Amino acid sequence: MSAQGPRGGNRRGRGGGSGKGANRGPNKGQGKGQSKGRPPGDHQRSRREKVGLGGDRVEGRQAVRELLLAGTRQVREVVIAAGQNQTGVLAQVMELAAEMRVPVKELPHAKFESMAVTEAPQGVIARAAPLAEHDLEDLARPPAGRPPFLLVLDGVTDPGNVGAALRTAECAGVTGAVLGRHRSAHITPAAAKAAAGAIEHVPMAVVPGIPNALARLGELGVWTVGLDVAAPTAVYDMSVAAEAVALVVGSEGRGLSRLARQRCDVVAAIPLSGSLSSLNAAAAVAIGCFEVARHRRSD
Amino acid sequence: MSAQGPRGGNRRGRGGGSGKGANRGPNKGQGKGQSKGRPPGDHQRSRREKVGLGGDRVEGRQAVRELLLAGTRQVREVVIAAGQNQTGVLAQVMELAAEMRVPVKELPHAKFESMAVTEAPQGVIARAAPLAEHDLEDLARPPAGRPPFLLVLDGVTDPGNVGAALRTAECAGVTGAVLGRHRSAHITPAAAKAAAGAIEHVPMAVVPGIPNALARLGELGVWTVGLDVAAPTAVYDMSVAAEAVALVVGSEGRGLSRLARQRCDVVAAIPLSGSLSSLNAAAAVAIGCFEVARHRRSD
Repeated sequence: MSAQGPRGGNRRGRGGGSGKGANRGPNKGQGKGQSKGRPPGDHQRSRREKVGLGGDRVEGRQAVRELLLAGTRQVREVVIAAGQNQTGVLAQVMELAAEMRVPVKELPHAKFESMAVTEAPQGVIARAAPLAEHDLEDLARPPAGRPPFLLVLDGVTDPGNVGAALRTAECAGVTGAVLGRHRSAHITPAAAKAAAGAIEHVPMAVVPGIPNALARLGELGVWTVGLDVAAPTAVYDMSVAAEAVALVVGSEGRGLSRLARQRCDVVAAIPLSGSLSSLNAAAAVAIGCFEVARHRRSD
Repeated sequence: MSAQGPRGGNRRGRGGGSGKGANRGPNKGQGKGQSKGRPPGDHQRSRREKVGLGGDRVEGRQAVRELLLAGTRQVREVVIAAGQNQTGVLAQVMELAAEMRVPVKELPHAKFESMAVTEAPQGVIARAAPLAEHDLEDLARPPAGRPPFLLVLDGVTDPGNVGAALRTAECAGVTGAVLGRHRSAHITPAAAKAAAGAIEHVPMAVVPGIPNALARLGELGVWTVGLDVAAPTAVYDMSVAAEAVALVVGSEGRGLSRLARQRCDVVAAIPLSGSLSSLNAAAAVAIGCFEVARHRRSD
């Protein structure tokens, strides 16, 4: 591994944050019961609701199965289209719903389709409690003592891309994700479907601004690595990948915002060898996250 | 790099193929004029037409711009929705169309939308000559003397996934792609849009069966590496990546077919570190292709 990157540079103390949330326990709001209701009198919550994380509508067989399997939030209802062969994943969904006493409603095909929001709901929709939002402080201290491995999405507006990114990130071992409250897709039904269950396993924070969140992560001892096609360092030489790290990925069209790029400790490029000038955001997430995973295996 | 893999094993002679196409020149059908007409009297072509490669309808700004920029096939018409700001990529599309004397038709928004096949055509549709099909023999001998780096998609049926896979593969430096004629998505408008221009740069072969194509690639001196989540070797230890290599990626639900897996010289796993049991096919392509690219850089 190269010695590039800021290792040994003007490193901010790990965990030396002084923000008001710094002393909160880890894993807040991640327990099973937490998602059933919101803490009463929490003013922030009501404002959050308007541009909240979402996730209350889940469509698609795999996504619904994972929602039921994970058991981390209340599932209010499962709706299925009539006339399907209840085998494979759908059979598992029906079994899990029965076990968990989740009401199952069967609708005629046309009615089901008119209820579905995504293009291919695969005959299954679930209504659930919205996803719990987490604080950056929680994400910087993942359970089980693993060094945090975070994914920060800076202005990714396509819900399918957000979902695909979360799915791949979960497979790479990401311990948390950060989304912008504005100018960013949240967990819409399309995102939930593409995530194929990852939203049940990856704690997420929604922040008012990505640049400030990056600064805060630095205070919390997390290295921030931005992906930028014009960076001089290749992502293969990320020296900080095995430490507490957040990978920051920008939107397809514009890449990282100027401020976010400035706030990153390291900016690294995925070297392109073809004629096209840019990767899809979800592909960049896949390559970047698995590059971090590779470093963590070998270090 | 590990010594795993079949290097030095029962290697078949490179380029030792005896198939009827083995003596054809490289790069057949890749020239500018080739796509304008089909060779007369080519019986195979008429059969191919029914389940051909496609690509004659391209929607989306970036995909249409790349189609015009590449100049490898005839563009019959560009259709745009009226009332758009003709700036950015759309301005480039209009300039390129004028330069190349491609007729541009402006349609009222509603009429344009009813003509579009994809969900978000971004105000631009092009009609073009279908993509030229290539033979495996062509793909095994890419121009400019580079060792071939092929992507083989085994039963990927979602056009968006096929397009996304091709886009990422092109960025990784893939020199050709192989699709199955049946039980596989071809270059539909949705695939062309997701490919964002990659279909203009990656020569593609459509084969009757993937297992036979893998055997033929072996005869042509190309190592075949299948991705399989259950393989004992990690994709990071691919010893053959810097040589003539074809990466074989299966469908999401079932992975590689049994026969395709048997025919691969090496089977390698992308190690998963989360709770989910599988990656999206396009994500697997991204990680696998850029892992090959990384090996090629460092070897």
